[in-house]
Amino acid sequence: MLRNVSRLAKRSVRGHASAAHAGSSSTGGAVSVAAKYFPNEPKQPTLVTESVPGPKSMAINDHLGTVFDNRAAYFVTDFYNSVGNYISDADGNKLLDVYCQISSIPLGYNNPELFVAATSPEMASALINRPALACFPQADYAKILEDGILAAAPPGMSKVWTALSGSCANETAYKAAFMFQAAKSRGAMDFSDEELQSVMLNKTPGASDKTILSFEKGFHGRLFGSLSTTRSKAIHKMDIPAFDWPVAPFPELKYPLNEHVRENAEEEARCLAAFEEIVTSHPPGHIAAIIVEPVQSEGGDNHASPEFFKGLRQLTRKHDILMIVDEVQTGVGASGKFWAHEHWNLQDPPDMVTFSKKFQAAGFYFSDPALQPSQPYRQFNTWCGDPSKAIIAKAIYQEVEKNNLVERTAQTGDYLYKQLQSLATKYPNKIRNLRGENFGTFIAWDCESPTHRNELLLKMRGAGVNIGGCGERTVRLRPTLLFEATHANVLLNALEQVLAN
Amino acid sequence: MLRNVSRLAKRSVRGHASAAHAGSSSTGGAVSVAAKYFPNEPKQPTLVTESVPGPKSMAINDHLGTVFDNRAAYFVTDFYNSVGNYISDADGNKLLDVYCQISSIPLGYNNPELFVAATSPEMASALINRPALACFPQADYAKILEDGILAAAPPGMSKVWTALSGSCANETAYKAAFMFQAAKSRGAMDFSDEELQSVMLNKTPGASDKTILSFEKGFHGRLFGSLSTTRSKAIHKMDIPAFDWPVAPFPELKYPLNEHVRENAEEEARCLAAFEEIVTSHPPGHIAAIIVEPVQSEGGDNHASPEFFKGLRQLTRKHDILMIVDEVQTGVGASGKFWAHEHWNLQDPPDMVTFSKKFQAAGFYFSDPALQPSQPYRQFNTWCGDPSKAIIAKAIYQEVEKNNLVERTAQTGDYLYKQLQSLATKYPNKIRNLRGENFGTFIAWDCESPTHRNELLLKMRGAGVNIGGCGERTVRLRPTLLFEATHANVLLNALEQVLAN
Repeated sequence: MLRNVSRLAKRSVRGHASAAHAGSSSTGGAVSVAAKYFPNEPKQPTLVTESVPGPKSMAINDHLGTVFDNRAAYFVTDFYNSVGNYISDADGNKLLDVYCQISSIPLGYNNPELFVAATSPEMASALINRPALACFPQADYAKILEDGILAAAPPGMSKVWTALSGSCANETAYKAAFMFQAAKSRGAMDFSDEELQSVMLNKTPGASDKTILSFEKGFHGRLFGSLSTTRSKAIHKMDIPAFDWPVAPFPELKYPLNEHVRENAEEEARCLAAFEEIVTSHPPGHIAAIIVEPVQSEGGDNHASPEFFKGLRQLTRKHDILMIVDEVQTGVGASGKFWAHEHWNLQDPPDMVTFSKKFQAAGFYFSDPALQPSQPYRQFNTWCGDPSKAIIAKAIYQEVEKNNLVERTAQTGDYLYKQLQSLATKYPNKIRNLRGENFGTFIAWDCESPTHRNELLLKMRGAGVNIGGCGERTVRLRPTLLFEATHANVLLNALEQVLAN
Repeated sequence: MLRNVSRLAKRSVRGHASAAHAGSSSTGGAVSVAAKYFPNEPKQPTLVTESVPGPKSMAINDHLGTVFDNRAAYFVTDFYNSVGNYISDADGNKLLDVYCQISSIPLGYNNPELFVAATSPEMASALINRPALACFPQADYAKILEDGILAAAPPGMSKVWTALSGSCANETAYKAAFMFQAAKSRGAMDFSDEELQSVMLNKTPGASDKTILSFEKGFHGRLFGSLSTTRSKAIHKMDIPAFDWPVAPFPELKYPLNEHVRENAEEEARCLAAFEEIVTSHPPGHIAAIIVEPVQSEGGDNHASPEFFKGLRQLTRKHDILMIVDEVQTGVGASGKFWAHEHWNLQDPPDMVTFSKKFQAAGFYFSDPALQPSQPYRQFNTWCGDPSKAIIAKAIYQEVEKNNLVERTAQTGDYLYKQLQSLATKYPNKIRNLRGENFGTFIAWDCESPTHRNELLLKMRGAGVNIGGCGERTVRLRPTLLFEATHANVLLNALEQVLAN
C-alpha cells in the first residue's frame, strides 16, 4: 500500500532545471537563509503513504474528534519532525508547506532562533507568571514591545494595544473608534444620567448606534463585532446575531491588469463613488470607522490598487471617519513590504492597523493619543495581551530584519510570479486571474470552478505540497518568509505535474 | 524617605498568635505545600519604599505609558523576584498577593513545577510552531487535553472547545447556542436562499434575532457579544454598540445568611419568578441561552444559593433554553470545589461551562454532541486555542490534584472566614456583608462606601498586602491555591492593623 514518491518529485525538479537556474539568478545568488537556519531541511517532499492523510493521521484524528471539533483537519501534524518549509504529518510524510497554519508560520518550522526565545528565562517567567498587564505590568514589557512589536510599527504609528487574536485585535480597535467618535461630540467624561442608565439596558444613548463599515467579501474575524464586519461567506455568519452595519462594494479587478487598465480604473471609481454614497446616506457621525484589508484574503485574495486605497483615505478624512487597516493576514513581510499597506504610499497614515498571524501575537497600532480613551478601564481586560507572545514577536521581527527577509520575499515572489505567469500561459483555463505581481509571495489565482480548485488542492497534497484555498475557487500561496527559489521550484514542479494530468 | 516595615508586620503576626494556632489546627497540621514548592517564600511582606508604587515603579510605568495604555497600573511587577504568594514590585517591595493578577495565578509566582512545563520540549514546539489546531492538529493535542483540561472537566462534560480569553470562551459558547437552537427548528444544513442572502447583509432570517439572557451585575467579558451580556458597570459598556438582549434580576442577599433565611428565600423566589416572566414575555425560542456566574465576581461578589441555581436549571429546561455557566473567575479550585457550580449539586448539568483565568487557558466544556455544529468551519478560527496554554493548564491540573489543593483551599477558606467573622464582629461598620462561607478562599465583604473601600485597598498595600476590589464597595479575596493559614494570618494582621487606624 505504501509508496515513496520522492523519486517522482526528484524527477520533477530536474524537469524544471531552467526554472531553478532562473530562480538562483533572480535572488542574486545570495546565500540561502533557509539553509542557514535549517541545514537538514528536505530538498523535496517525501510521501510514505498512499494518500494524505495517511492511516496514522486518520486514527489520531478520529480519537481527537471524540473530545475536540477537528472536522476541518487536513491531516495530523508532527511538529517535532517538521523542518523549515516542510511540514511532517503523523505518518511521516513531509510536505512542502505553502499554507503555513493559515498564513501564520513566519520563519519555518522549528526555527532555531525562535527556539532560543522560546527557551529563554523571560519566556519561562511569562508563561508561569501570566500578568494582568494593565494593572501589574511587568518591568520589561516596554522593552519587549520596543524591541519587537513597536520596532515593526508601520510608518506614523507610535503606540500599540496588545490583544490575543485577530478577532479581538479588530474588536478592540472598533471599541477605540466608537469611544473616540463619542468623545468628539460629547466629551470623554461627562456621561449623562440618561446615558449611564440606558447603557445598562443595551439601549441608546449610552450604547452606541454608530457603526463600522466593511467591504463585500472582507474577512475580519469570527466574534460578534468582528463577524458583523465579515462578509466573506454565508457559512461564517449563519445563525449568529449581527449588528446592522453598512457594507460597501470592493473592486472586482480584471486580469491581467495591464490589459484592463481602463476597466479596472472605472471599477475602482465606481466603488469609491458607491462608498461615498453609502456614507452620505447615513447621518454624519453614524459611521465611526471603516475596516479594510490590503488584500481580501479569506474572501478570495481580492486586490485593489494603491489609488483605490488612497481614495478611501481621502474620503474617510473628508467625512470624519476613522480608517482601520486589517493586516492580520497581510502583515509581517509576505507582501514584499513589512506591512502590505506600505505599497499604497499614503501620505496620511491609517488611524489604526491591526495585526496577528505571522507575528504570533495580536493587537492594533495607532498614533493619535485620543484613540486611547480618556479614562482607564474602558479599553481593558484581564490580560491585555500576553508577554509570551510579545517575546516571540520580538524574535520574529529581529530575525526578519537581520536577514532582510522582506526584501528576499519580494525577490522570491517576483521569481515565482513570473514562473506562474508562464504556467498560466500554458494552462490558461487552469490558472486564471493570476494576481500578486510585485506583491511578494502573496500570490493567488482562480481555478475553473470550486470543484476544480478543491481537486487541485487535494492533488497538490498528493504531489507533496500543502496548499490552501480561499474565496470560491481561488488558490492562495502563503509560504514562510524563508521560501526561496529552490522551494518555489518544488512548488512549480508539483503544480505543473498536477496540471499536466 | 525609605523605610522598612517588615518589623511592623512581624509584630502584627505575633499579635495574632492565637489565630495562627487555630490556623495550624484547622488544616490538620498538614505539611505546607507552599513551603514544599517555595522554601524561600517570605514569611511576611517587606516594604522598602515609602509607598507603593515606589519611585522605580512610577518611572518605569511612565515610560511604558508612552507606548501602551497602563493607566490602570497598581505598580510595576518584578516577576523574577516574586515567590509563591508574594509579589515583588520594581522597587523591591514584597507584598502578600491576594489579588493574583485578577484572580489568575493558581500555584504562586515562579512555581517550580510550572517551570518544568514551561521549559519542556513540547512547550518550545508549541511556541515556535503555533498550529492552526482545527486544520492541522498536532499529534499530541488529544493527550494534552485529556491529561489536563479534560481531566478537570465538570461532572457530565465530555468535550471541550479551546479559545484564548474568557471573552472569546463565552462568545464561542454563545455561537454554539445560537447554531444549536437554529438547527433544532430548521435543521442544520438546509439553509434557504433567503437565509443565505440576508445573512450577508446582517439581516434576518440568516442572521439570528435570538438572544442571550444575562443577569444584572453579571460580567462576561468585553468584546461585542460578551459585553452585551455584561451588566456590571456603565464604564465597561459606555459608547459601545450592544445587542438588545434581555436582562433578569440577580438575587441581592442579606447577610449574615442565617439571620435572613426567609427574606433571602423570598428574594430568590422573586428573581426566579421575574426570570420566568421575562422568558415568557418573549416568543418561544427567542432566548437561545442564559449565562450566569456562580458568584458575580466583577459585579461585587454576589452569591446566590444552590436552590436559586437549581431553579434556573429547571426553568431553562422547561422553556428549552440552554444554560451556560461562566466559571471564568470562579473555576479551578478557589471556591473549595474545582468548579464552583459543583456546590449546587445539580442532577442535570449545565449545557456549557466556560473557563479561563486560573487555568491560564480558555474555552468551554459541553457534552451534547449537537453543541458541536453539524458542519465544520462554523465554530472555527485560525488557531482554535493554543497548545502552549493547554500544556500549562495540564501542569496546573496535575499539581492541584497531586497536592489536594482544592480540599486544602476549602480548609484555609474555612479558617480565614471564621477569623474574618471575628473581625467583622469587632468592626461591624468596616466589614459588612461578609460572604463566602464554605466557599474556599472566594471571600468578600463590603465597606461603608466606595471611598472607604478604595482607601482600604490603598492602606492594605501600604501594609504589605496586594488586594483587589469589585462592585461598588466590595473587597474581594483572590489568593492562590497555595494560600495557607500562615498566609491568612499575615492578611488578617495587616487588615486588623489597617482597620484599627
